[in-house]
Amino acid sequence: MKQKIEVASSRPYSIFLGTTLEELGAYLEEKVGRSQHLLIVTHPQVGEYYLERLLKGLSAFRCDVLVVPPGEEEKSLERLSALTSEAVAYGADRHSVVLALGGGVIGDLAGFFASVFMRGIRFVQIPTTLLAQVDSSIGGKTAVNHPAGKNLLGAFYPPLVVWTDFSTLQTLPWEEVQNGLAETIKHAVIADPELFSFLQSHQPEILAWTPEIYKELTVRSLQVKVKLVMEDEKEKGQRMLLNLGHSFGHALETEAAYQEISHGQGVSIGMIAATYLAEARGLINPEEVKSILNLVKGLGLPVSIQGKDPEVLLRLMEADKKNQDGQKVLILPEKIGHALVVRDARDEEILRAWEKVITE
Amino acid sequence: MKQKIEVASSRPYSIFLGTTLEELGAYLEEKVGRSQHLLIVTHPQVGEYYLERLLKGLSAFRCDVLVVPPGEEEKSLERLSALTSEAVAYGADRHSVVLALGGGVIGDLAGFFASVFMRGIRFVQIPTTLLAQVDSSIGGKTAVNHPAGKNLLGAFYPPLVVWTDFSTLQTLPWEEVQNGLAETIKHAVIADPELFSFLQSHQPEILAWTPEIYKELTVRSLQVKVKLVMEDEKEKGQRMLLNLGHSFGHALETEAAYQEISHGQGVSIGMIAATYLAEARGLINPEEVKSILNLVKGLGLPVSIQGKDPEVLLRLMEADKKNQDGQKVLILPEKIGHALVVRDARDEEILRAWEKVITE
Repeated sequence: MKQKIEVASSRPYSIFLGTTLEELGAYLEEKVGRSQHLLIVTHPQVGEYYLERLLKGLSAFRCDVLVVPPGEEEKSLERLSALTSEAVAYGADRHSVVLALGGGVIGDLAGFFASVFMRGIRFVQIPTTLLAQVDSSIGGKTAVNHPAGKNLLGAFYPPLVVWTDFSTLQTLPWEEVQNGLAETIKHAVIADPELFSFLQSHQPEILAWTPEIYKELTVRSLQVKVKLVMEDEKEKGQRMLLNLGHSFGHALETEAAYQEISHGQGVSIGMIAATYLAEARGLINPEEVKSILNLVKGLGLPVSIQGKDPEVLLRLMEADKKNQDGQKVLILPEKIGHALVVRDARDEEILRAWEKVITE
Repeated sequence: MKQKIEVASSRPYSIFLGTTLEELGAYLEEKVGRSQHLLIVTHPQVGEYYLERLLKGLSAFRCDVLVVPPGEEEKSLERLSALTSEAVAYGADRHSVVLALGGGVIGDLAGFFASVFMRGIRFVQIPTTLLAQVDSSIGGKTAVNHPAGKNLLGAFYPPLVVWTDFSTLQTLPWEEVQNGLAETIKHAVIADPELFSFLQSHQPEILAWTPEIYKELTVRSLQVKVKLVMEDEKEKGQRMLLNLGHSFGHALETEAAYQEISHGQGVSIGMIAATYLAEARGLINPEEVKSILNLVKGLGLPVSIQGKDPEVLLRLMEADKKNQDGQKVLILPEKIGHALVVRDARDEEILRAWEKVITE
């Protein structure tokens, strides 16, 4: 099953689903012309698994490979600088094309690199993780982290194309799958009650890693994102809903210096904290809170964390990009399939929400 | 005399000429609303001279000042990172507005910072040098340098407005004036024979630093730039002509690590090298070569440099952003007021041109 989704944006692009890595070359020959210079940015393990298959289709191009060490800490200005040196050494110019072969870290980093190298060169997203396929490869957000905050420096920079080969999920470690599941639950909670029911009723197949279920889950999940992104490319309104769980989650990730906690774990706990805050406000009914809690737990994701200091986490939320005039801006679920942007949350309420997800 | 020039671009903006620093506040109150948070990025000396006047008009805003040490070497990723930390510490958010008060370094750096901070916040150019007023504040190019090349990382990011107060030129050191004169001569050579004649016939007043002459020179010079930029915002064609002298000049600046040679000196010598290359090809006649040489010398700018190695400079031209598929792309004057993009220059010819501008 091949599928093509067109994304309207300042620079429209296509998402291809169910295509193979080997087929990308033929598409690029048509799109950018033969014998262009390609800079393939990838992760060591992903490169080992998939580079050969990708290169098989790229014989018409001059290809250089830039391998980025694993880890969220590589989404940094230092790595951006190293990529710049390597690219120049390989003779890259304004006409070179960046191919981001990997997960969210590779896509965010390579995309930001492409957006600033020589003031912007073209790039292609080849997401190989569930997180990247259902979420981060779509929408044109690119960024690196900074000691002062996650994704603090970046650009809205749509790719030329998003090229999704479902077979790359087969080698994914379970923890990585969970990162994608967390974002998928988030998409269901903010905008798609049917996707929520789908996840509820297919828990066993999801946990058993059944390919057909994942294909459906991916397509449904990314459609939520595509819809919100098309309505609001630069995140001035509705696109903010995609941040459910992220204000809390980023604080957890920053506090742990991206070491002990995965993005999916951060988002899961963050989504639960936001849900508790919504419940305390009487925004969402206790039945639905329970459903969310059960689904997150049911898919093996955490709903709490041990031994953190709520005050420290509260302070780390101050660097959140949604905040305005020193006021924290939060996304809260109102019911399953519907969320709100809330601009009047008091620190007191946020601390209570943190306390509910922190165990001793 | 106040003047307003509208620049059509992906995000249109206005250039105000002959306005005062004190008046900017009232304009911004209308444009972005009162009580916004402003981050004023400036140079120590410029701040000392002009910050007080600027702040006088900004009482309706919350202002923080970020002072960048002097020098082209501050156009770096390291300084970008430091600005990020400072901005977060000052509580900057997506709604903050960056004001770049200074010359080309401040405008390029603060503009690039604004383009990537939280994926892009608004910014205002307040050019205080001749170079910035006639050239670098216009056209939306922002960048930092990288050890592998000048302006290698950046963005096309139009400002909200360019606000030019001619009175700031009064405190400008002569070497800084020369940086602006070099770009003005360049504008004349590539696109405006009348501006060339104007410069020829007003050499004494230019050297005597006569304000009225500088106003006229600034308006004429920036109009050349505005015209080329509007025709070709992303530098895919005609805008490249603005690079006359820069392929050679950037190599000189990079070789000297931006220390012993100013940008204007680099551009002047580079423009002369390009002119010699054009002459050797029979593109431009010897009379006009002489006129260009005389004008550059007449305005006190260098036409040669001592003790450099042509081979080293040739290699440094390989990182030029205009190059394509390993072929150097040069801008050459064809006659005064007209230049060409040349894509077949051989290294041999370039070496000969370098030799003509290098003395023992």
